[in-house]
Amino acid sequence: MRIPRHVGIIPDGNRRWAKGQSMDKKDGYRHGLNPGLEVMKEAMRFGVKELTYYGFTVDNCKRPKEQIKAFQQACIDAVKLIENDAVSLLVVGNTESKFFPEELLSYTKRNEEDESKMKVNFLVNYGWDWDLRNGFSSKEISRMDMIIRWGGMCRLSGFLPIQSVYADFYVVKDLWPDYRNEHFEEAINWYQKQDVTLGG
Amino acid sequence: MRIPRHVGIIPDGNRRWAKGQSMDKKDGYRHGLNPGLEVMKEAMRFGVKELTYYGFTVDNCKRPKEQIKAFQQACIDAVKLIENDAVSLLVVGNTESKFFPEELLSYTKRNEEDESKMKVNFLVNYGWDWDLRNGFSSKEISRMDMIIRWGGMCRLSGFLPIQSVYADFYVVKDLWPDYRNEHFEEAINWYQKQDVTLGG
Repeated sequence: MRIPRHVGIIPDGNRRWAKGQSMDKKDGYRHGLNPGLEVMKEAMRFGVKELTYYGFTVDNCKRPKEQIKAFQQACIDAVKLIENDAVSLLVVGNTESKFFPEELLSYTKRNEEDESKMKVNFLVNYGWDWDLRNGFSSKEISRMDMIIRWGGMCRLSGFLPIQSVYADFYVVKDLWPDYRNEHFEEAINWYQKQDVTLGG
Repeated sequence: MRIPRHVGIIPDGNRRWAKGQSMDKKDGYRHGLNPGLEVMKEAMRFGVKELTYYGFTVDNCKRPKEQIKAFQQACIDAVKLIENDAVSLLVVGNTESKFFPEELLSYTKRNEEDESKMKVNFLVNYGWDWDLRNGFSSKEISRMDMIIRWGGMCRLSGFLPIQSVYADFYVVKDLWPDYRNEHFEEAINWYQKQDVTLGG
């Protein structure tokens, strides 16, 4: 079986999900926490070597205050939840802005390079233009082989423009809080049929 | 009707099409010429303001010589075919390499800025890393709203990483030489249902 070495995760649809449940939009984010843990375990089971989550972006911080607070908190909780001995964690984002949560500052350097551990990257207060303007700030994150986006949209929304140049893009219609392991398995099955050429 | 201002065209599948017709792979490219003209007319009819074709890339030039010659010629012919008074043409690519066709050098500057004309951009011997390494060489090309790729793959393959950050990506299963105007119409219909947020 052909396993993508590095998978990108765009966990979209939290607000639409909350709306569908007659909740406040902001309440969608915390329902995305458990899916984040589940997809990581699933990626590990398949032997994926690196996983990158699209947390929140500089653009997202134009939203109403209570939503910003909610996705900041969800990112903090997510990092704490996936942080464990089995993964090598890195948070990447613009730490110089007030939107970057202080609690995550200590994760912006990868502790150790341990090849036996899966690398897990988390974009927090990330911006594609910030990344490129600052001489490729995300350069510690390697090129992605596959990107999976939940919530039905087929767009990158500024997700790591350099690392996504050759990535295969798989879209799941279901919203992120409705994550099921079958989504990941379907993406891996679909990936089998993609032919890697890198333009050659 | 919501019309994308700028549409990117990834005309993939020429070689697979040739194989299916029991032709030499290299012979697929010239069968992509007429589709290029047709899609331009169709985009014009819908009121699209800017159209960008992914011609060939620096990566593509690792292929066998006869294929390189064939796609170079197809690009020259395509530019000549779409060049007319009604469009404002620009060719963007690495002119300093031997793979850039001399015949297209005169198109690397846009003649005039005439707002009434559709802008048509053609990437020739383009490379995403060349683009970024050289301080955003493609900066005359604006951000794309929608990218349509023929040939079934859902990936950018290095197509304008900066201009594609917020683009909606539509995939046509048919191979590029099998282009039909319905493909473009279906893409426009699909685009109606996409919600533009730019992350906000």
